[in-house]
Amino acid sequence: MKTFSTSNGILIRLNANEDLLETLASVIKEQQIQGGVVSGLGTLKEITLGYYQLEEKQYDRRHFAKDMELLSLLGNITWLDGAPLVHAHVTISGKDYAVMGGHLFSAKVAATAEIFITPFSERLNRTHDEKTGLNLING
Amino acid sequence: MKTFSTSNGILIRLNANEDLLETLASVIKEQQIQGGVVSGLGTLKEITLGYYQLEEKQYDRRHFAKDMELLSLLGNITWLDGAPLVHAHVTISGKDYAVMGGHLFSAKVAATAEIFITPFSERLNRTHDEKTGLNLING
Amino acid sequence: MKTFSTSNGILIRLNANEDLLETLASVIKEQQIQGGVVSGLGTLKEITLGYYQLEEKQYDRRHFAKDMELLSLLGNITWLDGAPLVHAHVTISGKDYAVMGGHLFSAKVAATAEIFITPFSERLNRTHDEKTGLNLING
Repeated sequence: MKTFSTSNGILIRLNANEDLLETLASVIKEQQIQGGVVSGLGTLKEITLGYYQLEEKQYDRRHFAKDMELLSLLGNITWLDGAPLVHAHVTISGKDYAVMGGHLFSAKVAATAEIFITPFSERLNRTHDEKTGLNLING
Repeated sequence: MKTFSTSNGILIRLNANEDLLETLASVIKEQQIQGGVVSGLGTLKEITLGYYQLEEKQYDRRHFAKDMELLSLLGNITWLDGAPLVHAHVTISGKDYAVMGGHLFSAKVAATAEIFITPFSERLNRTHDEKTGLNLING
Repeated sequence: MKTFSTSNGILIRLNANEDLLETLASVIKEQQIQGGVVSGLGTLKEITLGYYQLEEKQYDRRHFAKDMELLSLLGNITWLDGAPLVHAHVTISGKDYAVMGGHLFSAKVAATAEIFITPFSERLNRTHDEKTGLNLING
């Protein structure tokens, strides 16, 4: 991983085999990022996605083992229980170009990933919401 | 709906059953946002998407009733006939993780949605374009 | 093509039949943009997408001739061999609303495209990486 500070945010180049969310968490901690929005592209592998089943209040999960293009990652950085959390949804595709997607639980980088953080100075916190079963942004 | 002002834009948390585009319009009006770009993720339901048929100069429409993950929302805020307009395209997926997408006509929030507006101070207007049949950004 | 300068970046409206990446390159050159992140939506045609085959260190390519909604374009502007380069991944869909996607090699605009550049003042360079076969961001 290598980070590049720019006048409008931080560009992160992740390397093959790095864990995407763990690497982002380490950058956030190291650079003391308080909050932000996240976007990016690249290639991923060993991807676990989720679909939220609101009635059951739990995620269905599916694993994608193969190398996939990361077409879009959109998310944000907030705080939960005193630690920064990256909440992100992704779309991915393989050699058939058909796109799959969901809530990102975990993934490793296949060849490279290029993630941009637009930081903000405010800490926004998530708190557990009984009604939806999710940790919602709550200020 | 709850809005959070940050150093780089406005983060909006929408709640279950809120109309996505109507809620964004109310935030834009209330906060007197002149323009901007919009991105976000969440979960949606009762979604109407469009595919533009350029030859016929009209949209085909399809309705998705079920709860879907909102994987990406990308759009912008411009003005049409004196009122702010959110133009957005989305990708969504259900429990089979296959992604559908199109021009966003309308949707309600299923569990939550997290939308970020990067505002700008300029008003950009759309005007009707005969050739394409669309309202194009025209300064 | 028409560009609109805003307080947070440059909004570009592309017109029918314009080449997407060539037009972006001309704006970058004309406005002397040093770097940035890119996002956008619109409609495309004559689209060539790629899927990177890491083992073979080469892209598979597929052409999509028909008009498609451009649901998401996410990318960045860096420098390779002394010239600015837009690296972008896209998701697209047709009248069946099923989403396809990949690395964007080339595309023309069908009706319109609305692309936003968040510029930064730093030049970031890509250099060829033997291990992956890709041009990676390297500072």
